[in-house]
Amino acid sequence: MRTTYFTTLLIFLLTFQSQGQENALVMQTDFGLKDGAVSAMKGVAFSVSRNLKIFDNTHEIQPFNIWEAAYRLHQTAAYWPKGTVFVSVVDPGVGSERRSVVMKTKSGHFIVTPDNGTLTFVADNMGIAEIRIIDETKNRLAHSQESYTFHGRDVYAYTGARLASGLISFEEVGPKFEGDIVRLPYQKPTLKNGIITGNVDILDIQYGNVWSNISLHLLRDADIEYGDKLQVKIEEDGVVKFDGVVLFGKTFADVAEGDNVAYVNSLLNFSLGVNQQDFSRKYKIRSGANSTIIVKEWK
Amino acid sequence: MRTTYFTTLLIFLLTFQSQGQENALVMQTDFGLKDGAVSAMKGVAFSVSRNLKIFDNTHEIQPFNIWEAAYRLHQTAAYWPKGTVFVSVVDPGVGSERRSVVMKTKSGHFIVTPDNGTLTFVADNMGIAEIRIIDETKNRLAHSQESYTFHGRDVYAYTGARLASGLISFEEVGPKFEGDIVRLPYQKPTLKNGIITGNVDILDIQYGNVWSNISLHLLRDADIEYGDKLQVKIEEDGVVKFDGVVLFGKTFADVAEGDNVAYVNSLLNFSLGVNQQDFSRKYKIRSGANSTIIVKEWK
Amino acid sequence: MRTTYFTTLLIFLLTFQSQGQENALVMQTDFGLKDGAVSAMKGVAFSVSRNLKIFDNTHEIQPFNIWEAAYRLHQTAAYWPKGTVFVSVVDPGVGSERRSVVMKTKSGHFIVTPDNGTLTFVADNMGIAEIRIIDETKNRLAHSQESYTFHGRDVYAYTGARLASGLISFEEVGPKFEGDIVRLPYQKPTLKNGIITGNVDILDIQYGNVWSNISLHLLRDADIEYGDKLQVKIEEDGVVKFDGVVLFGKTFADVAEGDNVAYVNSLLNFSLGVNQQDFSRKYKIRSGANSTIIVKEWK
Repeated sequence: MRTTYFTTLLIFLLTFQSQGQENALVMQTDFGLKDGAVSAMKGVAFSVSRNLKIFDNTHEIQPFNIWEAAYRLHQTAAYWPKGTVFVSVVDPGVGSERRSVVMKTKSGHFIVTPDNGTLTFVADNMGIAEIRIIDETKNRLAHSQESYTFHGRDVYAYTGARLASGLISFEEVGPKFEGDIVRLPYQKPTLKNGIITGNVDILDIQYGNVWSNISLHLLRDADIEYGDKLQVKIEEDGVVKFDGVVLFGKTFADVAEGDNVAYVNSLLNFSLGVNQQDFSRKYKIRSGANSTIIVKEWK
Repeated sequence: MRTTYFTTLLIFLLTFQSQGQENALVMQTDFGLKDGAVSAMKGVAFSVSRNLKIFDNTHEIQPFNIWEAAYRLHQTAAYWPKGTVFVSVVDPGVGSERRSVVMKTKSGHFIVTPDNGTLTFVADNMGIAEIRIIDETKNRLAHSQESYTFHGRDVYAYTGARLASGLISFEEVGPKFEGDIVRLPYQKPTLKNGIITGNVDILDIQYGNVWSNISLHLLRDADIEYGDKLQVKIEEDGVVKFDGVVLFGKTFADVAEGDNVAYVNSLLNFSLGVNQQDFSRKYKIRSGANSTIIVKEWK
Repeated sequence: MRTTYFTTLLIFLLTFQSQGQENALVMQTDFGLKDGAVSAMKGVAFSVSRNLKIFDNTHEIQPFNIWEAAYRLHQTAAYWPKGTVFVSVVDPGVGSERRSVVMKTKSGHFIVTPDNGTLTFVADNMGIAEIRIIDETKNRLAHSQESYTFHGRDVYAYTGARLASGLISFEEVGPKFEGDIVRLPYQKPTLKNGIITGNVDILDIQYGNVWSNISLHLLRDADIEYGDKLQVKIEEDGVVKFDGVVLFGKTFADVAEGDNVAYVNSLLNFSLGVNQQDFSRKYKIRSGANSTIIVKEWK
């Protein structure tokens, strides 16, 4: 009798403990925050498990901009703990034949997304452990079969919530994915004869800074150090948008207000800004695979 | 003695269990996210119960647009579980004599709102179980009596949080409401001689799609099927804004980029879009009671 | 043996109880919501403690606008319970020598922020209990030493999360701060010969209302009552932007649509608006230390 009590109590306790340990579900979309779409996704996730910790990555991705979706995952994933499930819904091909997948990274993070290029940067930077195709006969919100245009709610939020809360295992997502994911083309950073070439990965929109995919490591390989002056060129489809000499500082405060500065951003990549002004607007810089950045020491 | 221990433990456990089971509090306002108003409401709710799960529906409702407030509740409520408490604060008449109420729907959802038309679509679609008038002598943030312009914080967030966390029952909200709620006029969808007439309910703002209140059921009653060509007309106050033949597809991908398409949206209502473009901007469509949509099969 | 069981169970229970009681972490920044910066901060905080309750004050503070950061904390802090930890990141001097501090208010709230003026209004209104300088040798995200431009993530979110979840005490933040914090200059409200003078503290952006720092108490000291007509003047750097007679009402509904009204806002401060229109746009009012407001009874 006493044993029964204890057993019951322990089951209760372990239940609570596992609830406290539920993983985060982090959502990103291009839906914006003006309507009810994100709320409907969260309602579905909350209905799956009331103990799920639900967060937003961003919902202000430019509509249909898969490059940006790929970048926002890359920008943030490593700062969330192992086991975190990201749901990304930038899905211009919703309802067409693109695959719906869950990628597990080597770091133990999960990404639920249409396989449309969104996985590019996380795959290259965190490594692919395994990918599963979502089996929609099992992993789809009940009674949603008539809806063809909101997989974010009916499939992705639902599957992500079930995975994050432990109701299904990664294997139960669906069959193993063979072959390669869809990848966006981009310029991988290179160093040759002291000249570094890379891509403008993204604009740091709020402040107008320009972020490249050239790492601090590569700068060091080229013997570039804080305090050096650098010759920097940005070309878009071969047209020069910026060509100048810039101080490589630790922070914006290393130059006067209004002056250009090169620095290492929060992902430890080479970046350009203007102290308390907007570099990207000043030089009309855009990001993407066709926006090349070339850096060398100025002598 | 042992029994006492067990009893104490069980009370603890049930307390935790009930905490884990607390209902969601879902807020929507026309406050925007640029200031501290939404945070103040959440602070009040969190002060009521630290275990409350607090979410946002949207805070970007156009200021004073009660129609949109009513629609956003309708768009999302069914995706949240029974017991969820919605707090809606679009309140152009704050401080005037409009009633503050809590509606319980037949589906078991609760809406805390000024009775100014916000309940229209949820009342018609989910059904009214019962309505209570908020007794502000009991259900009002302590020491907030001098504040006349922020019932969202002082009355609605406070009452919603107490209801969602189980600190008060629905009956304790206040006296039963007799009579009818304020309802926005709108065109209920009809089918006559193969011609369906309804309203443009809302614009799917982020993508520029046009959502009607004509259900998939009604389309089927009119023998309309995917792949059919449809004759669609949209009139605003009697002025024709769109009149054309549109393919009825399952998804945007059924037409070429830039082509018009008719489809069924995530609420299973008849909608119009342009694949990867903006239908509402192209034809200057607006939503509301005076925006009529007429659909029939094209032969 | 039985005692061991009980002890284990009680430890479990107290763990859960303390988890349920974790404090809120409330973040505000000028980062906007378009990128991944806020998400990275939340990921760091969630990695510190999965039971932390994480909320947003606002992330739409105008870039580098310390006055607004200071105001948003003042607007909201009192509505969150004692023990709440606010993290404020409006940090134009990131990487420079400004101090990183945690202020404990007399009301028991904590503010984690660069000491750049952000503390001004909370310090004056809630009172300073004690300030600690963040010891970044102990309170900094592991492996973030190469990052000089995102203290919001690496230092402030991390330290705030550890403080809110009880992993460190206030004393463990770092050494006691001696001397005075950086304070923004502003006009403290005064009453002389029936004339009240104060500052335009902030614009209530969404609706275009103008909020002053003149309290209801001061209005009462000047024998001003609801229903009175008031002579109101607003000057910016000595230039008159508004000068007129306005009814002092309890709510907007006390005047016709489109009419000016003086009222007491949700912080019980003197404010000006137009019923369902935008006062600040109508008269081109801006907020700040150089925007003076003068009120007296109209006779």
